Amino acid sequence: MPDKPRLGIGLIGSGFMGRAHVFGFSTADRAFDLPYRLELSKLADVDLETARQAAEDFGFSEATGDWRELLGDPDIDVIDITAPNALHKEMALAAIAAGKHVYCEKPLAPMAADAREMAEAAEAAGVRTQVGFNYLCNPMLSLAREMIAAGELGEIRSYRAVHAEDYMADSTDPFTFRHDPAGGGALGDIGSHALATAECLLGPIERVMGDCVTHIPTRPDGGNGSRRIEVDDIGRAFLRFDSGASGSIEANWLATGRKMQHDFEVYGSKGAILYTGERFNELHFYETASRTGRHGFRRIEAAPEHPPYGQFCVAPGHQIGFNDLKAIEVAGFVRAIAGHIPEPFGFRKGLRIQTLVETIQQSAIAGKWLEVPR
Amino acid sequence: MPDKPRLGIGLIGSGFMGRAHVFGFSTADRAFDLPYRLELSKLADVDLETARQAAEDFGFSEATGDWRELLGDPDIDVIDITAPNALHKEMALAAIAAGKHVYCEKPLAPMAADAREMAEAAEAAGVRTQVGFNYLCNPMLSLAREMIAAGELGEIRSYRAVHAEDYMADSTDPFTFRHDPAGGGALGDIGSHALATAECLLGPIERVMGDCVTHIPTRPDGGNGSRRIEVDDIGRAFLRFDSGASGSIEANWLATGRKMQHDFEVYGSKGAILYTGERFNELHFYETASRTGRHGFRRIEAAPEHPPYGQFCVAPGHQIGFNDLKAIEVAGFVRAIAGHIPEPFGFRKGLRIQTLVETIQQSAIAGKWLEVPR
Amino acid sequence: MPDKPRLGIGLIGSGFMGRAHVFGFSTADRAFDLPYRLELSKLADVDLETARQAAEDFGFSEATGDWRELLGDPDIDVIDITAPNALHKEMALAAIAAGKHVYCEKPLAPMAADAREMAEAAEAAGVRTQVGFNYLCNPMLSLAREMIAAGELGEIRSYRAVHAEDYMADSTDPFTFRHDPAGGGALGDIGSHALATAECLLGPIERVMGDCVTHIPTRPDGGNGSRRIEVDDIGRAFLRFDSGASGSIEANWLATGRKMQHDFEVYGSKGAILYTGERFNELHFYETASRTGRHGFRRIEAAPEHPPYGQFCVAPGHQIGFNDLKAIEVAGFVRAIAGHIPEPFGFRKGLRIQTLVETIQQSAIAGKWLEVPR
Amino acid sequence: MPDKPRLGIGLIGSGFMGRAHVFGFSTADRAFDLPYRLELSKLADVDLETARQAAEDFGFSEATGDWRELLGDPDIDVIDITAPNALHKEMALAAIAAGKHVYCEKPLAPMAADAREMAEAAEAAGVRTQVGFNYLCNPMLSLAREMIAAGELGEIRSYRAVHAEDYMADSTDPFTFRHDPAGGGALGDIGSHALATAECLLGPIERVMGDCVTHIPTRPDGGNGSRRIEVDDIGRAFLRFDSGASGSIEANWLATGRKMQHDFEVYGSKGAILYTGERFNELHFYETASRTGRHGFRRIEAAPEHPPYGQFCVAPGHQIGFNDLKAIEVAGFVRAIAGHIPEPFGFRKGLRIQTLVETIQQSAIAGKWLEVPR
Repeated sequence: MPDKPRLGIGLIGSGFMGRAHVFGFSTADRAFDLPYRLELSKLADVDLETARQAAEDFGFSEATGDWRELLGDPDIDVIDITAPNALHKEMALAAIAAGKHVYCEKPLAPMAADAREMAEAAEAAGVRTQVGFNYLCNPMLSLAREMIAAGELGEIRSYRAVHAEDYMADSTDPFTFRHDPAGGGALGDIGSHALATAECLLGPIERVMGDCVTHIPTRPDGGNGSRRIEVDDIGRAFLRFDSGASGSIEANWLATGRKMQHDFEVYGSKGAILYTGERFNELHFYETASRTGRHGFRRIEAAPEHPPYGQFCVAPGHQIGFNDLKAIEVAGFVRAIAGHIPEPFGFRKGLRIQTLVETIQQSAIAGKWLEVPR
Repeated sequence: MPDKPRLGIGLIGSGFMGRAHVFGFSTADRAFDLPYRLELSKLADVDLETARQAAEDFGFSEATGDWRELLGDPDIDVIDITAPNALHKEMALAAIAAGKHVYCEKPLAPMAADAREMAEAAEAAGVRTQVGFNYLCNPMLSLAREMIAAGELGEIRSYRAVHAEDYMADSTDPFTFRHDPAGGGALGDIGSHALATAECLLGPIERVMGDCVTHIPTRPDGGNGSRRIEVDDIGRAFLRFDSGASGSIEANWLATGRKMQHDFEVYGSKGAILYTGERFNELHFYETASRTGRHGFRRIEAAPEHPPYGQFCVAPGHQIGFNDLKAIEVAGFVRAIAGHIPEPFGFRKGLRIQTLVETIQQSAIAGKWLEVPR
Repeated sequence: MPDKPRLGIGLIGSGFMGRAHVFGFSTADRAFDLPYRLELSKLADVDLETARQAAEDFGFSEATGDWRELLGDPDIDVIDITAPNALHKEMALAAIAAGKHVYCEKPLAPMAADAREMAEAAEAAGVRTQVGFNYLCNPMLSLAREMIAAGELGEIRSYRAVHAEDYMADSTDPFTFRHDPAGGGALGDIGSHALATAECLLGPIERVMGDCVTHIPTRPDGGNGSRRIEVDDIGRAFLRFDSGASGSIEANWLATGRKMQHDFEVYGSKGAILYTGERFNELHFYETASRTGRHGFRRIEAAPEHPPYGQFCVAPGHQIGFNDLKAIEVAGFVRAIAGHIPEPFGFRKGLRIQTLVETIQQSAIAGKWLEVPR
Repeated sequence: MPDKPRLGIGLIGSGFMGRAHVFGFSTADRAFDLPYRLELSKLADVDLETARQAAEDFGFSEATGDWRELLGDPDIDVIDITAPNALHKEMALAAIAAGKHVYCEKPLAPMAADAREMAEAAEAAGVRTQVGFNYLCNPMLSLAREMIAAGELGEIRSYRAVHAEDYMADSTDPFTFRHDPAGGGALGDIGSHALATAECLLGPIERVMGDCVTHIPTRPDGGNGSRRIEVDDIGRAFLRFDSGASGSIEANWLATGRKMQHDFEVYGSKGAILYTGERFNELHFYETASRTGRHGFRRIEAAPEHPPYGQFCVAPGHQIGFNDLKAIEVAGFVRAIAGHIPEPFGFRKGLRIQTLVETIQQSAIAGKWLEVPR
C-alpha cells in the first residue's frame, strides 16, 4: 500500500482555539481514514519564544515569530488562523494570495464586507477554505438535519433556538476585544453559532427582526477608568425561513449559570426535535405516529448508527467530547481539499453568517423587519 | 367555636373548566382555613337537563337552564363564569349589576375594551373579582417571585418564556371558537398565561415588538368546506420591562409533542431561575455565591417550606396537581372577598393581560415596537 | 334520575393521612361516577375537642372522642382507620365485627400474624377492605402494568427498585413510633411501597435475600436520654419472582436529599420501563422495535389515554397530585363495596406485604435466602 | 529548553481498545505537560498484514505479526496489552520479565490467582503497571472523591451503584469469549467498573453477599448448535465497607435500552452525590446546609475548576469525551513511570478488583456473606 500524500499545516496562534485545532488535527488523523497524512509543520505566534514553546507542546516541527514566514514555505499546504479576529482578514488574504488552503476560526471577519472580500478571493484563487463552526460537526446535529430532510418531522412550522452562556455576566470583568464595536457583541460571538445551526437545519433565512440590548453599559478599562460598551449583551431575532417556517433565536452572554446552552427546538406537522448543547450527545425526538398512549419525546443517545460517532468509539452511549467535534471539522476540510466532498463550511458560508448577524443588528437599530441580502 | 358564615356559589357552565372550578371549591374548603364555608348553591347550563346532571355530579343543590336565574338568587354570593369566552362580558356585567362577586375564567373578554368595561363596572360596584390564571397559583411560582423580590438573583437582566402546546397541531382538526378572529389565537389563548407569569415575576412590561404567524391557513369548517384562519398559530414578542430587563415570550399551539410547556428562565446578576410547566413541582436555581467548583442549577422540589404546598401535604416532594392550583386560586379569591387580602388577580389584571395581547398583535401588524398602554 | 344510595364514612384519626383520606373522599365523589354518594358522617379522634375541630375542618357531620361510637352507628357503612399503626388491629377487628367495611392506612398491622388475623376476619365477615397503598393508584403505574402484561417489554428479566427518602437522616431527631421494634423500620415503612409495586408489576415474589442495617444506633428519647435503635434504617433485598425474573429493592430513610425516590426499572427482552416517584406523571419507555438510529427512552406524560387521569383533567400533561392518588384509591374501594370490581388492595394483600417484609427481615438475620410463605 | 526524554510504546492489539489507547497516547501528549515525549514505536497484531495496516492508521513506526518481538526491542519502554483477556497473563509476565512497564486493558486476568502472579511479578521487577479502568479518570469522579474525603457529605452511610448496558440483551447473539466460564460474565466485565468506582470513592469493601443470575441459558454457538451459558448475565451484591457504610451494586448486561448506565448514589449525613455515566460531565450534589426552602440537588457541570478538565478545554460546560478519559489514564501512568506520582491503578489494584468479583461469585454460589480477602 502506497504512502498517503502529506498535507503540511501552518498554524497561527496558540491560544484556546489554537490548542483545540491541534487536538483536531491529531485526532482526525487517527479517527478517520483521510486522503492525506497531516503534518504539523510550523507554528507562528507573536514572538519566537512563545511560538517555540507552543510548537514543542503541540508537536510542530518548526516555530516562528512572524506569521508571514508561513506564506512562502513550500512545506505548508494549509494555513490555519486562530489569531485575534481583527487579524483574520489580512492573514487570510495573504494566505490565499500565496495559494494556501485556509482554515480560519470564527468569526471569519468582523464585518460582512471584509468576509465577502475574503470569500471572493478564495474562490478566485481556487483554494479550499473552512471556518470553524464546530457545533455543526456534532453527529446529533447531522442526525437532526437528516431527519428533517427525510421528512420525519413532516412540514416544519417553527423553530426556537438560543445560544446562552455567562462568560460576560460579571459586570466587573474588564473590556475585551469581544466588546469592540467593530464586530463584537454576543450576537456575533455566539449568536453566530445559533444562526449557523438554524440554516444548517432549516435552510435559508429570508427575513429577520432584530432586538439588541446592552445591559452592562460600562466596563473597567483595565486601568483605573471605565469604557462605554456599545455592543449587544443580548441579541434576539424573529426569523422567517424561505421554507415558510417561522422562528426565533437569542444570543445571550449574560445568562448566569449557563455554560453551553446551545439549544434548539424544531416543530413539524409529524414530529419534533429538541436539543441542548449541555448534553450534546443526545437528541430528543417525538413522532405523532407512535401508538396511542405511547407518545413521548425519546432521548436518542449518540451511537455508531450516527456517523461519524463510530470513528471515535464502536460502543453506543460512550460520548464524544468538544475536541472530537474539531476532529470532525478537520476531517471534512481535508476531504474537501482532496476534492472528495464540497467544502463543509467555507468562507462563503462564513460570509453568510456575518451577513445574518449584521442584518439582525441593522434591523434592531431600524426597529423593523429586514430582508437578508443573498 | 361559632360557625363560619356561608358563601353561596352559582356556577355557569360545566365543561372542562367548570369541573376544574368545582374541584377547586371542594378542595379549597378542606385544604385552607377559609373565612367562609363554601356552598355550591346553583348550577346553570345551556338547558335544564344538562344543568341537573352536572349539579348532581358536582354536588350543587339546585340547577337551572337559565343563567339569569342566578342573578336574583339571594343565596348566591359569587357567580362563577366558565361559559364560552364570547359570553363572559354579558354575564359578568349582569352579575356585577346584581351585586355579586364574580369569578371568571380567562380570557376575561375577547377584546381589551370589553375587559376594561368589566373591570370598571366591578370597581364601581365594589364587588370582588377573580380571573382564572391558575398557573400563577403554583407555590413554585410564588417562590420564584419571592426570590426575585428579595434580590436573590441580583439585578434581573433577561427573561425568556414560552407557552407551547400541540392541541392545534393537526391541520385536519376543525375550526373552533378559538380560531375566531374576535379574540382568538394562540397569543390570547395561551400566550396570556406567559404574559401573566412575566409581569407577576418581573413587573410591568413597558414596550413590545410582536410577531404573529398563521401556519395553518385553513381548517375544515365542520361541514364539507373549509374556513380561512385569521388568528395567530404562533405569537412571539420581544419585551422591555419597566425595570430595565429585556425578554421574549412565545405562544405556540402547533408545538408537536408539547403538552404543557409553560416555561420561563430568569437571569440576574447574582443568580438564575429555570422553570418548566412540564414539571411544575420543581424550580431550578443557580447562585453565583456557591463555592468554587460547586456551582450548578439545583432542583428545588415543592415542599411545605413553599406555601401553600403544606396545606395539601405535610411531606415534601409528594407533589400537588393541576386541580390543586385551582383550589389555591379559590382560596385567594375567598380571602379577598372577606377583605383579608387584596384581589389576587381581579378584572383589572385580566384587562391588563388583554391589553398586552392586543398591543403585541397590533405591533406585529405594524411591524414595529409599541408602548403598552397603562 | 334516581338519587344514588349513600355511603356513610366514619373516620378515625385526623393527622396527615386522615386529611389525605378526606381529600380522597371529596375528590373521588366529584372526579368519578361512583355507585354511592359519599357522606362524611362522623370523625373520631383522641378527645372530643380535637375531633370537633377536625370534623368542622374536614366537613364531617358529627364528632366523637371515642372511636367505638362509630361501631354501632347505623349511618356509618365504612370505618376508615388512620390512627397510629399499633391500634390498627384492634380497631379493624372491632369494625369488622360490627359489619362495617374497613379502609385502613398502611401498614395493615405491625406483624404479619396480626395482619393475617385481620384478613381472615374480614373474609369471614364478608366485608370489603382496603389498605392505603396509594402509589399503586397512579395511572402511570397502571400503564406500566398494562404494558408488561401485554408483552410490550417481551419476557421480563430484571427489576430494580428503591424507595428512599430522608426523613430520618438527621440523627438528632428523636425516637418515634416508627423506630419501635414491633413493626418499625424503613423496610416496613417505605419498603412496603416498593414491595407492593414490585408484585403489582411482576407478580409474586418467590424467594428473597435480605440485608437490614441500622446506621444510627441511638436517638434522643425526647427527654434527656437516648434510646437504642433496633430497626433497620436501610433494608435491601435480592428478589426472585415466580415468573423467573430477578431483581432487587432498597428501602432507605437516610437518603439525604431524597423526598420521594419511589423508583423502578423493568428490563425485558423487547423493551424497558423507567419510573421515578419524583416525577410521577411520567413513564419512560424504550422499545427495541424502533427504527435504527431512532432508539431511546421516551418520556410518556400522563394524559387522558392513561385512565383514570382523564377523570381529573381532559388535557394531557397537566398533572395530577398526591391527593388525587387517594381519590383513585377511594374510587376503587367504593366500587368494590358495590361489587363492581374485586377489592383493589384488600387486607389479604396487606397481609402479603407484611409477609414479604418479615421474610426479608428474617432472611437478613439468618444471612441466607428464604422462600416467601404463601 | 532541553528536549524531553522519549518513552517508546509497543502496542499489542488494534481493536476497539487498541484504538482507544492510541487516542489516549496522542491526546495525552498534547493535553498534558508530560515528563516524556511519547513515541508510538511498534504495533503487534495477529499477523503482519493486520499489524502493518493498523500501524499506518494509528501512526506507529513499525509493525510485527509476533508480539514477542516487542520484548527485546530497546526502543520500547512500555508494552501496552489490548489483546484478548485470555492472553493478558502470558504477555504481561513476558513484558515484565523483559523489564518493560506494562499497560494492560481490564480485566487484568480472568482469575484472581493469575492477577496476583502478575502483580507480584511487576512489583518484584520494579516496573510500573496500569490497568485500564478509564471511568475512574473522569474529573467528575475525582470531584466526588475529593468531596467525600473533605467531609462535604458528612459521614457516609449508604451507596447504591449499577453498571448496566444492553449489549447481551439479544438472546440470538452468539456465544463469545465474554461468556467463557473462565472469567466471563457481566460481573467481571462491567461489574468490575462498578466495584472499582465503589472502592475509589468509599474505600475498601469488607464483606459481600452476592447474587449471580443467568437469564439466557443458551446461545447460538456460531455454527448450527447452541452453547450453554454458565456465567452471570446479572451480578448483584450487598456491600459492607470498612468505613461502616453499607451499599449495593448491580452489573447487568441485559438492561435493554441502557448503553452506559454507570451510576452511583452516595448518601451521607450532611449531603449526597448522584452520578450517571449517561451524562458523565455532570455531578449532582445536595447539601443539608442550604437555606430553608432552597435545598435541592444541583447539577455541577464539568469545568476547569475540576482538574484535569482544563487540560482539554478552558471553557466550562464544553464536555470531554470517552477517549479523553483514556488520555487522562495515560497521563497518570506516564507520570508514575517518571516517579512523579504513585501508580494510579496498577496491577495490585487490578488484582483487588478480580478478588472482589470472585468473592461475590463465590458468595452467590454459597448463598451467604463472605469476607473479602485482603
